[in-house]
Amino acid sequence: MGVTETLARFILNTPTEAIPAPILHEGKRCIINYMAVALYASADPSMGILTGVFEEEGGSASATLIGAGTRTNLQNAALANGYLAHLEDYDDTHFPTVIHPSAPTIPAAFAIAEREGATGLDVLAATVLGVEACCRVGLSVYPNHYDAGWHITGTCGVFGAAAAAGRLLGLDEQQMTYALGIAGTQAAGVREVFGSMTKAFHAGRSAQSGVLAGLLAQRGFTSTREILEGRRGFAAVLSTASDMGQISDGLGERWEVPNNGLKPYSCGVVSHPLVDAMIAMREDDGVLADDVASVSARVHPLVLELMDRPNPRVGLEGKFSHQHSMAVGLIDGGAYPAQYTDERVLDPAVSAFRDKIRATVDASVAEDACEVTVTLHDGREVTKSIAHATGAPENPLSDARLESKFRTLAHRVLSESQTDELLSTLWSLDTVDDVSAVMALTQG
Amino acid sequence: MGVTETLARFILNTPTEAIPAPILHEGKRCIINYMAVALYASADPSMGILTGVFEEEGGSASATLIGAGTRTNLQNAALANGYLAHLEDYDDTHFPTVIHPSAPTIPAAFAIAEREGATGLDVLAATVLGVEACCRVGLSVYPNHYDAGWHITGTCGVFGAAAAAGRLLGLDEQQMTYALGIAGTQAAGVREVFGSMTKAFHAGRSAQSGVLAGLLAQRGFTSTREILEGRRGFAAVLSTASDMGQISDGLGERWEVPNNGLKPYSCGVVSHPLVDAMIAMREDDGVLADDVASVSARVHPLVLELMDRPNPRVGLEGKFSHQHSMAVGLIDGGAYPAQYTDERVLDPAVSAFRDKIRATVDASVAEDACEVTVTLHDGREVTKSIAHATGAPENPLSDARLESKFRTLAHRVLSESQTDELLSTLWSLDTVDDVSAVMALTQG
Repeated sequence: MGVTETLARFILNTPTEAIPAPILHEGKRCIINYMAVALYASADPSMGILTGVFEEEGGSASATLIGAGTRTNLQNAALANGYLAHLEDYDDTHFPTVIHPSAPTIPAAFAIAEREGATGLDVLAATVLGVEACCRVGLSVYPNHYDAGWHITGTCGVFGAAAAAGRLLGLDEQQMTYALGIAGTQAAGVREVFGSMTKAFHAGRSAQSGVLAGLLAQRGFTSTREILEGRRGFAAVLSTASDMGQISDGLGERWEVPNNGLKPYSCGVVSHPLVDAMIAMREDDGVLADDVASVSARVHPLVLELMDRPNPRVGLEGKFSHQHSMAVGLIDGGAYPAQYTDERVLDPAVSAFRDKIRATVDASVAEDACEVTVTLHDGREVTKSIAHATGAPENPLSDARLESKFRTLAHRVLSESQTDELLSTLWSLDTVDDVSAVMALTQG
Repeated sequence: MGVTETLARFILNTPTEAIPAPILHEGKRCIINYMAVALYASADPSMGILTGVFEEEGGSASATLIGAGTRTNLQNAALANGYLAHLEDYDDTHFPTVIHPSAPTIPAAFAIAEREGATGLDVLAATVLGVEACCRVGLSVYPNHYDAGWHITGTCGVFGAAAAAGRLLGLDEQQMTYALGIAGTQAAGVREVFGSMTKAFHAGRSAQSGVLAGLLAQRGFTSTREILEGRRGFAAVLSTASDMGQISDGLGERWEVPNNGLKPYSCGVVSHPLVDAMIAMREDDGVLADDVASVSARVHPLVLELMDRPNPRVGLEGKFSHQHSMAVGLIDGGAYPAQYTDERVLDPAVSAFRDKIRATVDASVAEDACEVTVTLHDGREVTKSIAHATGAPENPLSDARLESKFRTLAHRVLSESQTDELLSTLWSLDTVDDVSAVMALTQG
């Protein structure tokens, strides 16, 4: 039996009871985190573009748009909710692959769950299995696939979405294998679009691709049985090297979702250790921006590859500026959506501080680590070494900090009591009878 | 100005009057050919899968599904009509790149044209410009992109669809550039799915991607300005080598649509010279299947790469079997949809003849050429050399043969008078006031 068929069977045949309780808990945390960021993003003006298209194109009221107070069809909901989930760059990161797996997976899961009247436990299991599928596919082609310039969230995301959708649709093994095929051949998304709305679009489009794949396969649409391992399949065509064992070895024994860290800050994940360092300087050492003459940092190569923007002009660019993220970390004591408005990015004091920062690549520095030294005007130096950034697998965002993140973000569109009700419902998601009730609570 | 912006300007700013009359005529032929194959395919049972999803998902009645007698929204129409256009493998081929450009481009053009109430001449121009964009992008990355295993129709097709859609939407230059970005980052489709419904799905999905890109860009959705040439853009990520000059050089002076050959046979294009040869043996030399001891052929490498299936089990496999296509060419005197039913593929006499065929690769043989020698039981040999297959740019399908193809295929779903009316309307497409009237004539 091939790798794709093996994965399909794992997705379908793993009893929910066989998923370890800590793994389900991680899945629940992913969902809470997803809801938080999507709720916040739902107030973004760009959502009007998507809903404008939905209104013109029409669609049955089958699934819920988070925060909007409206329903639309399954594919539209997956597209929009996936877009929202990734829009703030504040979702989650599977550290071994840099995939942000919840944004393409969970919207697909909830859309189909609403269609099926699935329970909260069903959605929880589908989310965990979808994230597992997505991340394992990513592991099978990492780093070559990533290094080639693919947006690995957009490409591998289709498998997470299809897995979750197929599980909840109750596909049989052939249908699930074909669904992975129909989804996998839609794997797409290049990093050239970073800095524009199209980046978040990738996550939504992948969620939608997975939903469509499930709906087609359920009705008998055929595809290849070997989308992953085939000679002209996903791994062969989209990567220069692959290891199929990463997909099939230890399924059900080794789980990837604990390696999926929830983001503490709303900016590129590779800068999070740097933000941690600057906040620590502010809080532990009382360093003030005006006291600082210069800042030097030893960083992982991805910091300069992905986040070297010394002069961002808009908030979106700031999210991918390590210089800006470090500046607000020190000046504001955080790197949250308020730090990534256009106004904050153009602030003269923040801008001046960015100019003081010099980062140098050190290949021995891990992706979730860094060392930062500030030199003060009086000659003193303060150094912070971060071994594992907040949110990294070895230093996960605590449940308490996750709640705090949820309350802050949800508050943009929900009242305090609405926020409380949704949060407590999500913490007991495994007891919910029909997730449509949960989605109804996301309406601002 | 970058290549993507140059292409965007060309698409938008080329006056219809500046397109040479012979080029517009080629565009018209593409549309007639597209309508023919889509009408025929509209009776395929698999269409019920797509329409089943459309019914569940809903959608405004904005554009016409060919042959179905129903309307749906723009994206659904693009998806379904693109699927139909490619389903029979009987559409067209841009010989230099092996792209089948009409299937992803024309459905997008007509969907937006119905939305805009565009004239027939508008659609004609948009089709020509879309095919141009699609084929030039293909040229810029051929052969590396193709050789890597991509379904080049699915990948490059998004650019044809976005170009046609953007032109008809009346996008401005920034919007068109962004539309190419939103579409281009959705470039997808691997050849592993060949032999299944998903292959034709690629063409439809690309048409839909282009329509969605245009609708989003028109409403202000942002993307990259450099999807084609960017460091992490389409060419860099989806190909190991590229030549951007193929896109920008000679725009408006050199046209690709004459290199887009309409298919005489409903099977993989690389076998068409072989089918020509077998038909010629039957018609010129009176060769009968029972007289034949063995068949040898010298073929272009793609014949064995794409069409080596000595034992097809279903019609779909037969379309990608050079052995089957040669067998029916001799036995039936043609290679049309009737030759690719499951029954014909399993016919014992046809099957026995397939077993007599041996093709060997000869790298000196051009893609549209071949040499076939049959050895008869009485020892005689008959050889046919084909320099340019019917339908190749140097030997195009005549207007008369195109009409014959149209009538035969349309007859599956239209009456003779409906066929006549549609055909004559299409021949005078450039005088049609509103293409919605044309689409109404496609209803069986």
